[in-house]
Amino acid sequence: MDARIKALIGAVEGPPVSPLAPAAFPAIAPVPGVEMATANSGTKYRGRDDVLLARMAPGTVVAGTFTRSLTRSAPVHRCEALLAQHAAGAAGASGFGLVVNAGNANAFTGRHGEEGVARVTDAAGQALDIPGDAVFTASTGVIGEPLDHARIAATLGDMAARLAPGPGEAAARAIMTTDTFPKAASAHVVLDGVPVQIAGIAKGSGMIAPDMATMLVFIFTDAAVDRAALQEMVSRLTDRTFNSITVDSDTSTSDTLLVAATGQAAMAPIAAADDPRLATFEAALCAVMHDLAIQVVKDGEGATKLVRIVVEGATSDVSARKIGLAIANSPLVKTAIAGEDPNWGRIVMAVGKAGEPADRDRLTIRFGDMVLAEAGWRAPSYDEAAAAAYMEREEIEIGVDLAIGSGRAVVHTCDLTKRYIEINADYRS
Amino acid sequence: MDARIKALIGAVEGPPVSPLAPAAFPAIAPVPGVEMATANSGTKYRGRDDVLLARMAPGTVVAGTFTRSLTRSAPVHRCEALLAQHAAGAAGASGFGLVVNAGNANAFTGRHGEEGVARVTDAAGQALDIPGDAVFTASTGVIGEPLDHARIAATLGDMAARLAPGPGEAAARAIMTTDTFPKAASAHVVLDGVPVQIAGIAKGSGMIAPDMATMLVFIFTDAAVDRAALQEMVSRLTDRTFNSITVDSDTSTSDTLLVAATGQAAMAPIAAADDPRLATFEAALCAVMHDLAIQVVKDGEGATKLVRIVVEGATSDVSARKIGLAIANSPLVKTAIAGEDPNWGRIVMAVGKAGEPADRDRLTIRFGDMVLAEAGWRAPSYDEAAAAAYMEREEIEIGVDLAIGSGRAVVHTCDLTKRYIEINADYRS
Repeated sequence: MDARIKALIGAVEGPPVSPLAPAAFPAIAPVPGVEMATANSGTKYRGRDDVLLARMAPGTVVAGTFTRSLTRSAPVHRCEALLAQHAAGAAGASGFGLVVNAGNANAFTGRHGEEGVARVTDAAGQALDIPGDAVFTASTGVIGEPLDHARIAATLGDMAARLAPGPGEAAARAIMTTDTFPKAASAHVVLDGVPVQIAGIAKGSGMIAPDMATMLVFIFTDAAVDRAALQEMVSRLTDRTFNSITVDSDTSTSDTLLVAATGQAAMAPIAAADDPRLATFEAALCAVMHDLAIQVVKDGEGATKLVRIVVEGATSDVSARKIGLAIANSPLVKTAIAGEDPNWGRIVMAVGKAGEPADRDRLTIRFGDMVLAEAGWRAPSYDEAAAAAYMEREEIEIGVDLAIGSGRAVVHTCDLTKRYIEINADYRS
Repeated sequence: MDARIKALIGAVEGPPVSPLAPAAFPAIAPVPGVEMATANSGTKYRGRDDVLLARMAPGTVVAGTFTRSLTRSAPVHRCEALLAQHAAGAAGASGFGLVVNAGNANAFTGRHGEEGVARVTDAAGQALDIPGDAVFTASTGVIGEPLDHARIAATLGDMAARLAPGPGEAAARAIMTTDTFPKAASAHVVLDGVPVQIAGIAKGSGMIAPDMATMLVFIFTDAAVDRAALQEMVSRLTDRTFNSITVDSDTSTSDTLLVAATGQAAMAPIAAADDPRLATFEAALCAVMHDLAIQVVKDGEGATKLVRIVVEGATSDVSARKIGLAIANSPLVKTAIAGEDPNWGRIVMAVGKAGEPADRDRLTIRFGDMVLAEAGWRAPSYDEAAAAAYMEREEIEIGVDLAIGSGRAVVHTCDLTKRYIEINADYRS
C-alpha cells in the first residue's frame, strides 16, 4: 500500500502495532516468591488495566538504577530512598511490595507528588499486610498532572485478594502507555545443579535515551543473591543494555529499573565476586535485560527499522559508546534510514560531532558486511545499488571502525519517521 | 486547508518556501572593497547559479570561526590554515579571494578533497590575479561525493571578468542548498563621523546545531579593524548568535563563518579593546550575525514556528545555554510545538536531562507572559485554553527561570514536523 495512504489510515485509526513487534507474547514462567495482580483504576485509560500490584516474599533483595534527570519524579525519589534504607538493612524484612500505574507520571507535581506516593504506598502496605515503607512505586505517563492517588489506592485491596504467580502478560500490559505491544523476557539457568528462573517485564517507546531510557523495567528471579552483589551487577549491566539504546535522545523523569531476587531457589546466596556461579547468573540476567532493551527500541515511536550500531577501534569503551549514541541520536542518520537511503556521509558527520577522538583518514564505515568508506574516502568497492538494497532490510547494522584504539560499544536505535511526529504532536489530546 | 492535504501537496510539489520566510529579500547596500559574481557550474543544480566568486581589496583583514566537527571538510581545513597564515602576517597583502560552491560539501573525500581545494583556489587566484593561497573556499551539500573541481574551476575566469559590487541577492542565492529562501542582513553605523557598512549573506537549513550550525556565513564591512580585534569580536559574538541556534542537533562538517573588513572607510583602524568605537561597531556586527542566525532557524527544514527560549537564573551563562539547547534539541518539545500542544511537562523533562544544576522546586516555566508552572508544580493561574491559544502563534517564547543564580542565555530553534522527515528521508535522490 502507498505509504501516504498508510499514514492517513494510521492517523485515523490510532497507533498500529510496531512492524518490529514479536509475533507473540513470549512464554515466561512465573518466578517463585513473586505474586501479581492488575486492575483498571479509571484514572486515564478505559477498557484496559492500568495498575499493577506485586508482592515479593520475605528474604527478597532488590537492586535498581534510575533516571539521572535532575527533575526526576516523586516515585523515583521514593525508590531511591527505599533502596538506601534496604542497603542499610532497615527495610525488607517483611518482603517488598510494588505498585505501578500507567497514564500519569506523577512528575513535577511538587509536594502533591510526594503525598500521592505516600498515599498509594501506605494503601499498598495495608493491602499486602507489610509496612507501607517497604513498597516501591513507579508511575509513567503525562508529566505535571496531579495523580489521582485515591482511585489507585481504591484498587489495591481487591488486587491483594487475587494475587497470583507472576510476572505474566497481564502485568506487562498494565504498565504500557504509548507502547504498541507488551514486553517480557525470561531466562532459565542452572547454578551448581539448582535451576533458577529470571523473568522481566518492561514498558517504553518514547522519551527513550540514556541515562536511562524512558522506561519502567521490573525483573524478578528466585536466585539467592547478596544485595550488594546484585546492585553491582545491575549497575554494570545497565550501561551495556538500557543505557546503550535510544529512540529520541530525550531522557525521562521517571526511568526505573528494579531487579528483585526472592532467594526462593534452594541455594546458598551468591555473594562474593569470585563466586563461580556469578558469571553464569550475570550472563543470564544480561540476556534478559538486553532482550527487554531491544524490545523497547523495536517499539520506538514510529519505528520501522531496528538499527544496531557497532563502534570499534575507539580510544575507550566509553568513547565508543558516545560515538555510537551520537550516530543513534542523529535525526539526519535516522531519517536517512527511514528513507532507505545509504547516506553514509551523515554517519561521518555524526562521528565528527561526537567530540570524541577520531581520525578522518583511518575511519571505516560499513553497512552489514559491505564496506562503504575507508581511509577517509568512499571505498573502491562501494556499490550504491547494493547499499540501497541493504537499506531495505528491517534490521540494519552500521559498523564504524575508528582504528585508533581498542574501545568497543554496541548501541541500538530505530529510524525516525513521520509517525513519530504524529504520535508526539498530540500525545496529550 | 487540512494539514494532511497540505502535506500531500508538499510531497508532490517539492519544498515550498518556509512559512516563516521574510516577505522580500532585504535591501542591502554593497560594501566598498568587495566584488562578487555567480555562475552555474553544472555540477549538481540546473537552472540556478551554484558558484560564488568574491574578491576583497588589498588591506582587507579576515576573521572566522568553523565547525568543531572532528570530520571537518577539506575546505574548512583550508580556511583554518589560511587564517593562521594571515594571523602570522604571511598572507593577504594582495587582498583575498573566496570561492563557494553549493551541492557538494567536499567533505570526507580524503586527499581527493584536498586536491580539489587546491585546484579550485589556484584557478581562482589566477582569475583574480592574486596568489592561490590567498583564496578562501567553502563547500556545502552532499558529504562523501567527489567534487567536480574542473567544472567549478572552469567558471572562474568568466566570473572574474564580470565582478560587481557585493554582496547582493544573486550571491545569497548561489550558496543555497535545501534553503527555501536567500538570506542576507545589513547594518549601517557611524563611527566618529565616518559611515560604515556591514552586510552579510548566509545559507543553512538542516544539520544545524552548535558548534556551529550547518551554515556558511560571509559578512563584509568596509570598517578598518585590526585583525586580532576582529577575530576576538567574531569569536565572542558567535557564541551568542550562531552557536545559540539549533534546528536538528546535527553538526555539519562544513560550517564556516568568515568576516572580512576591507578597511576602505576613511578611518583609523579599530585596534585596542578600549577604543570607544569598538562597542558601537560590535553591536552592529552582532545585529547582522543575529539576524542571519534567526533567518537560518526560520528556514529550518520543515519549520512552521520560530521558538525563542530564554533561560534565566542558572548558575552561569554557559549552564543557561546548555539548558536552552537541551530544550531546543528535544524532539518531544519540538513535536509538541508542531502540534500546538502546551505540553510544558516536556520542558521540565528537557531541563532535567541537561545535566546542569537545577532545583525542581524553584523552577518557573512560562510561555510568553503566561506562567505555566512554578515552585515545582502547575501554576495556580494555569489556564489550559489560554496556553493552547498561545501555541497557535507563529513565534513562541518559552521562558525558564531556575532561580538558583544569575546565568542567562537565549537560544532559538524551530518546531519538528513531518516535513523535516520528508526532506531528509530522501535528500540525495
